[in-house]
Amino acid sequence: MPLTHIDTIARVNYSEIDKMGVVYHSRYAVWLDVARTEYLRQAGMTYRELEELGFFLVVGDLTMRYHRPARYDDEVRVRCWVRDVASRRVTFAYRLTDAVTGVLLVSAETRMLSLNHQFHPTRIPPEVLALLQPAADPA
Amino acid sequence: MPLTHIDTIARVNYSEIDKMGVVYHSRYAVWLDVARTEYLRQAGMTYRELEELGFFLVVGDLTMRYHRPARYDDEVRVRCWVRDVASRRVTFAYRLTDAVTGVLLVSAETRMLSLNHQFHPTRIPPEVLALLQPAADPA
Amino acid sequence: MPLTHIDTIARVNYSEIDKMGVVYHSRYAVWLDVARTEYLRQAGMTYRELEELGFFLVVGDLTMRYHRPARYDDEVRVRCWVRDVASRRVTFAYRLTDAVTGVLLVSAETRMLSLNHQFHPTRIPPEVLALLQPAADPA
Amino acid sequence: MPLTHIDTIARVNYSEIDKMGVVYHSRYAVWLDVARTEYLRQAGMTYRELEELGFFLVVGDLTMRYHRPARYDDEVRVRCWVRDVASRRVTFAYRLTDAVTGVLLVSAETRMLSLNHQFHPTRIPPEVLALLQPAADPA
Repeated sequence: MPLTHIDTIARVNYSEIDKMGVVYHSRYAVWLDVARTEYLRQAGMTYRELEELGFFLVVGDLTMRYHRPARYDDEVRVRCWVRDVASRRVTFAYRLTDAVTGVLLVSAETRMLSLNHQFHPTRIPPEVLALLQPAADPA
Repeated sequence: MPLTHIDTIARVNYSEIDKMGVVYHSRYAVWLDVARTEYLRQAGMTYRELEELGFFLVVGDLTMRYHRPARYDDEVRVRCWVRDVASRRVTFAYRLTDAVTGVLLVSAETRMLSLNHQFHPTRIPPEVLALLQPAADPA
Repeated sequence: MPLTHIDTIARVNYSEIDKMGVVYHSRYAVWLDVARTEYLRQAGMTYRELEELGFFLVVGDLTMRYHRPARYDDEVRVRCWVRDVASRRVTFAYRLTDAVTGVLLVSAETRMLSLNHQFHPTRIPPEVLALLQPAADPA
Repeated sequence: MPLTHIDTIARVNYSEIDKMGVVYHSRYAVWLDVARTEYLRQAGMTYRELEELGFFLVVGDLTMRYHRPARYDDEVRVRCWVRDVASRRVTFAYRLTDAVTGVLLVSAETRMLSLNHQFHPTRIPPEVLALLQPAADPA
């Protein structure tokens, strides 16, 4: 059965907050990376293996909308799923919520491009494409 | 005369690149922050002063499109201007190019929201609004 | 029974490695922060609570020795314990090993200073001191 | 004439401070990297060129002592010099001061190890050694 979405949890560390006491906006992008890495692992192939096959999936577009701030020592749930897939690109979507209250914090999307190790666009190999099944936005 | 745009230069440090030898995608967001901070300084008010007046300008939306990668030790020109302004928000736009070759690397936009120190939306004060004149996209 | 040490696990993310494919040296300091935060939580008081009591524990000295590099997607075990404690300071020690092979990666120490919210040195409160029992270096 | 020391200036960005409003302690390590990179450039060889010759200089030991905090938007002078050099390692020392007041903020040292691209210890090549003249601690 294809994966519909995965969840990871991030605990906000002191290094991630700014003087407003909330997570600095660019740091959420790292949690998105952690989440899509776990997505691939749970789908059946690690990103490390994908690179060893001769491919990169690089971020071509990033969008983040900040609804509410996460604060120091909060636990944040990062939900990640595949929104769209084509022969040379895949779009991951993300919804970050407070792991205790469920309040929506951030919604985000990354469009990933398939490149070979010379950084040229290339088709996602079939065995990887098979793991990347688009799913409806989860609840 | 209102400011049409400002330029800052960032030199790519080893801490900013990943194993592909290129800048990790989220780090460009820090350079955007440096750029809009310098925009305000050159327009006539530092962000530190703006906070001391009781205001925050926080990122409500971030979009980045990655055209070409910046590599270790490259110098990157970050051009920043105001694209749009309203009573409670301002949109900064950015274009990052290789400082030597002029090649386009990243285009980006941040929509900033005006908040008071209780994190409630509030009008941008008139003396700040006066500094934030929208400009056509520069060459 | 006082805590002798705690263990946390960090998975190396793409954002943490440099073009040698190994963790950039300063990022280990963040894992040390995560580890001593978990130490306090397991000892019985979160660092957030300690700040709410009016105290900061800030890093006065940091030393790190790099034995072997951690690589992308590796899992790293961070062992943390209290090496020494006095009325106004506490020294945490750390040993980072590959979570699978046990190979030593980094040894580190942070001397933390107790400050009040005006950043003046101050005695660690007794209820916190009671949680910070020095332990012999663990195996 | 051999280089005795170099100075670089870092302006504290919002991304570098924590909720105490001061620079998060690990971020100074990045400024040390910027400083020694500029040292090499001014001495006559970029670190990029050194890597292209088949060498890495990696951090084997890092020590930082935090005297006073740098705050948001402050300018920090990073002074860097070679304290000691041997056939397979070089020690850089650093003193960070407030660029306006001259107040000492951080003193630091990094012992760098010469490795080949298989990560084995190797002699620093003579043309690089010639650039790395130890100097007395500058004023």
